[in-house]
Amino acid sequence: MLVFVAILLCYSGFSQNPQQEIKEDFKPSSKNQPGQEYPQVNSQGYARFRIVAPAADSVRVSLGLGGQGGTKLEKNEEGVWMGTTAGPMDEGFHYYHVNVDGGTFNDPGAKNYYGSVRWESGIEIPAHDQEFYALKNVSHGSVQQILFSSPSTKTSRRAFVYTPPGYYENRDKNYPVLYLQHGWGEDETAWSNQGHANLIMDNLIAEGKTAPFLIVMTYGMTNEIKWGGLKDFDIKHFQTVLVDELIPYVDENFRTIADEEHRAMAGLSMGGMETKMITLNKPHVFSHYALLSGGTYSPKDLQNHKDLKLVFISCGSKERPDAVKNSVEELKAAGFNTVSYISEGTAHEFQTWRRSLHELAPLLFN
Amino acid sequence: MLVFVAILLCYSGFSQNPQQEIKEDFKPSSKNQPGQEYPQVNSQGYARFRIVAPAADSVRVSLGLGGQGGTKLEKNEEGVWMGTTAGPMDEGFHYYHVNVDGGTFNDPGAKNYYGSVRWESGIEIPAHDQEFYALKNVSHGSVQQILFSSPSTKTSRRAFVYTPPGYYENRDKNYPVLYLQHGWGEDETAWSNQGHANLIMDNLIAEGKTAPFLIVMTYGMTNEIKWGGLKDFDIKHFQTVLVDELIPYVDENFRTIADEEHRAMAGLSMGGMETKMITLNKPHVFSHYALLSGGTYSPKDLQNHKDLKLVFISCGSKERPDAVKNSVEELKAAGFNTVSYISEGTAHEFQTWRRSLHELAPLLFN
Repeated sequence: MLVFVAILLCYSGFSQNPQQEIKEDFKPSSKNQPGQEYPQVNSQGYARFRIVAPAADSVRVSLGLGGQGGTKLEKNEEGVWMGTTAGPMDEGFHYYHVNVDGGTFNDPGAKNYYGSVRWESGIEIPAHDQEFYALKNVSHGSVQQILFSSPSTKTSRRAFVYTPPGYYENRDKNYPVLYLQHGWGEDETAWSNQGHANLIMDNLIAEGKTAPFLIVMTYGMTNEIKWGGLKDFDIKHFQTVLVDELIPYVDENFRTIADEEHRAMAGLSMGGMETKMITLNKPHVFSHYALLSGGTYSPKDLQNHKDLKLVFISCGSKERPDAVKNSVEELKAAGFNTVSYISEGTAHEFQTWRRSLHELAPLLFN
Repeated sequence: MLVFVAILLCYSGFSQNPQQEIKEDFKPSSKNQPGQEYPQVNSQGYARFRIVAPAADSVRVSLGLGGQGGTKLEKNEEGVWMGTTAGPMDEGFHYYHVNVDGGTFNDPGAKNYYGSVRWESGIEIPAHDQEFYALKNVSHGSVQQILFSSPSTKTSRRAFVYTPPGYYENRDKNYPVLYLQHGWGEDETAWSNQGHANLIMDNLIAEGKTAPFLIVMTYGMTNEIKWGGLKDFDIKHFQTVLVDELIPYVDENFRTIADEEHRAMAGLSMGGMETKMITLNKPHVFSHYALLSGGTYSPKDLQNHKDLKLVFISCGSKERPDAVKNSVEELKAAGFNTVSYISEGTAHEFQTWRRSLHELAPLLFN
C-alpha cells in the first residue's frame, strides 16, 4: 500500500523535450490568487516562478525536475528570485511548494490545495482538453458542505455533496449516488477544488452526455495517518463511517434512489484501494466500482458479485497502463462489464483523474 | 471609505497587560493544519510560533505588536526559529503572516483564510464564550456553493448558502433569507470559514433561540479592487449582482419567502458600508438592516423606509462604541426599532462579528 505514497513523493510531472526554445508567451496560472501575476505558464507547458525574499540565500521550487531538487531560482538586480522549469510540465494540475533558506513554504502567488497532508501551492498547465472542466455558461449544480453525525468517531464529520442542475426544481425526482474518494494526503475538498468534479458534471449534463446523479465526497483517512503511516491503515474505521453513517445520512437528507443498483463507489490512488477493499467487504452496497490509478480487480475478487453492473479501471499512460489493460481483459473474459481508460501523456496526477471521471460518468447508472 | 482599510492595516489584536508571567500551558491552535503542533496558544492568550528555515537570517511574525513589526523569532540550537508574542492577544480569530528574509509567506503550520486580498495564516485565541460557535452534537445545516449566472459581469459567480437543519426534510416549508457580506480584502468564504456562521446558527436553532432562516454569502468586491482601491469603489456593480441577479436566483432555486418582509441584509466593515448603500438605494428589497463595525444610519437616512422592521448596529469595545450608541439612541428617538451591540474586549476582528451575528440572528424575522 505504500506504493501510493512513493509515487506521490517521487513524481514531479516533468515532461519530455527539455531542449526546445522557450516561447515568451507566459501568462498567470489559472490557479493564482486574485490579482497575482506569478507563477506563470507558457504555451509549451513551462512554468516560471517569482518569489520576493530579498535577504534570502537560496530559493527553490519543488516542481521542474523530479529527484533533483526542482527548480533553483536566481536573484535578480531588484532582489527578486525568479526561475523557469528546465522543461515543459505535463498538462493539468500540479502541487508544489517553495524552499526558502531550508524552510518549506507556499508560493504567496498561488492558491492552496490540500495534498501531501498539507495545504500546498497549486499550478495549472493548460491542457489541450481543458474545455471539459471549464466554467461555462451552462446550468450549474451546487456543492454543499454537510456535517453528518459519526458515533463511531464521536464527532460530526464533513462531506461535500454535488447536486446536479435541476435538483431543486424537480422536487419529486430521486437520483443515484456516486461516492467518490480522494487520494493519500488529500481530503474531501480535493475532487471539487482541484478535480473540478462539479464542472465536469455540469458540462456533461449540459451536453446530454450523462444522466444526472449526486456525488458525495468525504475524508477517507479516518484514523490519524502521518507520513508513511499507511502500513497501519485499517479499512474498518473508514468503512464504518462510509457505509453505516454517511450513506444512511445521505439517503435520509437527499432525494436518492437508496439501493445497491443506484449506488457507485470510485476513488483515486489510495481512494481506489479503499474502493476495492470496501466493495469486496460489502458486496451488496454498490453496483458500480471504479479504481482511478488505484489498483485492479481480478475475476476471483468479484466471483460472488452477481449484481455488479460495471467495473471501471483507469490510470495515466505514464503510470502502469499495461496492468490496467491486462486486468480489464481478464475481467471481460470472465464476463464482467468492464471498461478501461488510459489518460494519454499524464502520470499519477489530477489530470488523469479529471479525465477518468469524465469517461466514467456517462457509463454510470445506465 | 478608506477607514476600513486603515483599521485593518493598523490593528493587530494586541491586548493589555504584557508584564505578567507567561504560563507554560501552550496548546496547538484550533486553526492549525492537521497534525501540526505550532503555532500554539496558552490560557492567557499568548501565541507562540515555530518556523523551520535553518539558513534564514531573519524571521518575523506579523502578530504581536501592531506597528512595531510583530514578533521577532529567534533561532535555536537546532536551527529552528521560535518566538512568543510580547503580550496576550485579544480573544478570537486573527489573520497573520510570516516574514522570512524580507519575503511574505504563510505559516506552514496554520490553515489559510482569505483576508487582506490574499490567503493569510489564521490563529485562534480561545475565547471565554467560544461555545456559541463550537462544533457540537446537534442537528447541522449545510453550506452549499452555488454558481449563479451573472449577465452584468459576464460570468457565473460563486455564493455560499446556509440552509438550516430541517430544510431538506420539511419540503413544504419556506424560509426567510439573510444576505450577509464579508469585509474589505475578504471573500465569500469568510463568514463560514473564519466566522463559523453555520455553527452559530446550528447552535442557536438547537437551543430554540432563533427561528431558522437561510444565509446567503457572496463576493462583494465585484469590480477589481487592489490595495487602497476603495476610493474608486462604485456600489452599482455589486448592487446589480446582488439585487438583480443573486436574489432572483436564490428565490428560484431555494424555498424562500420571497418578499421584503422576509429578507435581511447585513455586512461587516466594508460589507456594512455596502449594506448601508444598497438598503438606501433600494428601500423595498430588505426589511432588516445590520451594520457590524460598518458605520451607522441617521434618522434622515431612513425617513422613507416605512416598512423597516429592524436596524442592528454593532462594533467591538476597542473600536468606536460611542458612535454606535449615539446613532442607535437617535434612531430610537425617531421611532425606529433599533438594537445596538458592543462586543466587550474586541476590536475590528472576527470575534466581534461572530458575536454580532449571534446577537442579531434571534432578532430577525420575528
